[in-house]
Amino acid sequence: MKRIESRDNKWVKRLNGLKIKKNRDKEGVFVAEGLRFISEVPAGWEVEAFVVSDSFAGENDISIYEKKAELLCLPDVLFTSVCDTENPQGILAVCKKLNWDEDSVFAKKNPFLLLAEELNDPGNLGTVIRTADACGADAVFLSKGSVDLYNPKVLRSTMGSMFHIPVFQNVDLKDISAKLKENEIPLYAAHLKGDTFPYGLDLGQSCAFLIGNEARGLSDEAAALCDRWVKIPMPGQAESLNASIAAGVLMYEVVRQRLK
Amino acid sequence: MKRIESRDNKWVKRLNGLKIKKNRDKEGVFVAEGLRFISEVPAGWEVEAFVVSDSFAGENDISIYEKKAELLCLPDVLFTSVCDTENPQGILAVCKKLNWDEDSVFAKKNPFLLLAEELNDPGNLGTVIRTADACGADAVFLSKGSVDLYNPKVLRSTMGSMFHIPVFQNVDLKDISAKLKENEIPLYAAHLKGDTFPYGLDLGQSCAFLIGNEARGLSDEAAALCDRWVKIPMPGQAESLNASIAAGVLMYEVVRQRLK
Repeated sequence: MKRIESRDNKWVKRLNGLKIKKNRDKEGVFVAEGLRFISEVPAGWEVEAFVVSDSFAGENDISIYEKKAELLCLPDVLFTSVCDTENPQGILAVCKKLNWDEDSVFAKKNPFLLLAEELNDPGNLGTVIRTADACGADAVFLSKGSVDLYNPKVLRSTMGSMFHIPVFQNVDLKDISAKLKENEIPLYAAHLKGDTFPYGLDLGQSCAFLIGNEARGLSDEAAALCDRWVKIPMPGQAESLNASIAAGVLMYEVVRQRLK
Repeated sequence: MKRIESRDNKWVKRLNGLKIKKNRDKEGVFVAEGLRFISEVPAGWEVEAFVVSDSFAGENDISIYEKKAELLCLPDVLFTSVCDTENPQGILAVCKKLNWDEDSVFAKKNPFLLLAEELNDPGNLGTVIRTADACGADAVFLSKGSVDLYNPKVLRSTMGSMFHIPVFQNVDLKDISAKLKENEIPLYAAHLKGDTFPYGLDLGQSCAFLIGNEARGLSDEAAALCDRWVKIPMPGQAESLNASIAAGVLMYEVVRQRLK
C-alpha cells in the first residue's frame, strides 16, 4: 500500500483530472466510486488502482484490494477532494473503460436495441441504461452530443448496469440507421406525432427505438431516419414524458410481448 | 411596481426563507420559478406576488403580471440570490399551495391511484407526478417522510403536472389503505417478491399501486397493507428499477388496458 499525503502528488492530480471527460477519453479509464459500485465491477475487469481513505482503511479489510491492483491510501480530507460525491464512502477504483463489440450485438437473434439522440441529463442516461439492462435489451447507442457514460452521476444512476449491457457512444445516427436497415431491424421513433401506439407493433421480432433529447425531443433529421413513428398514449393532461420514462414504456412493451 | 434594492428588505428575507419547507408549510405558499412554470399556473390560481429581475423587466411586458398580483422588481444579482436555480430566467411567482379534495378523488368512477412510501429523490417524485398526470391517474398519495412536493427541484421536474393531478402529502399509509378497502379499491405493491406480473391484473377496474423508497424498496409494514404483490419482470441482469420507472411501467399497464 502506498500512502499519499500531498495535494501535489501526481496521483491526486490525476484523480482530479479524471473528473473531466477529456482526460478520461485520453487515458481510457474512469473512476468507480463507492463500495456498492465497486462490487458490481465484474471479476477479471482491468482495475488499475484502488484508492481508499484512512478511515476506510481503518475499518475494512483492504488486503483484498491490494491483491487485485495497486492500492493507494489518502487522508480523509484529501480523499474527499478527489471524489465527485460530497460524502464519499472512502473507496474508489480507477478502471479501464469498457470496450464492447458492435458486431456481436448485431449477430444476436432478434436484437432489441435502444438509441438516444443527445440525451443530456446524467440521471436520465443512467436510468435509461439501468432500464435497458432490466429489460434484457441488447445494446444502447448514444448519439454525438449526449452526456458522457463515464460522468460520475451517470455511472451512479446506472447502478452497475453499464457492466451488463453494451453502450456505444458518439454514434452517428445515420450510420447506425443504415446498419439497422442492412440487418432488417425496424427503427421506431418515440414521437408525439406517431401514428401508432407501441401496443400495435410486433416486438417479438428484432426492434430498435430512438428517443430524443429531454427538452427538444427528436430532431427532424433523426425522426426521418426511422421506419415508423410511435406515440405513447397520454390520456391525462401532461404534454410529454420524461425521456427515461418514455424509453421505459417502450422497452417494457417489448418485455411484455416477449413474455408470451 | 415596487422596487427592492436591499438584502435586508422583508420580501428578500421572506423569499430566501421559502427555500425551506418549514417556512413554506407555515405560510401555505410556494415559489414557482421561470416563465415556463408560471405559464402552467392555472387561470384563477391565487398568486400573491410576481418577482422579476431588472433585466427581465427591461426585456418583457411586465404589465400583464402587475394586473394579476403585487409586482416586485429586484436587481439581477439580488434576484438570483433568492432563486433556487443558478441561471434563473428573471421571473418567479409566490403562489398559494394547492388544496385538493380527497373525497372527490374517491367519488370518481374506477379510481386509478398511485401511492409512494418515503420517495426521497426530488427528480423521482417530480417524474412520478408528471407520469401519473400523463397516464390520467386520479391522484398521488405520498407517505410521511417523502420529499416535499413544493421543493423547487420537485416542482421543476413535474413540468406543471402538479397543477393537473391531486397530490396528497404526509399520508398515513394505514389510513389510506383502510380507505381503499372501504371503497373496494385493490392496492397492489410493486415488490420484487410479487407473485404476478402487472399484465395479469384486471386494471380496467379501480386500482391503486404502492411503490417504495429508492434505496430500500417497500417496508414490510407497508407491503403488508397491500392486497397483492406485483413483480415487474426483469429478464436482464439489473436487480431493480429506478422508482419512477417502476411507477411508470405499472401506470402504463393501466393505460394499455384501458385503451381497449
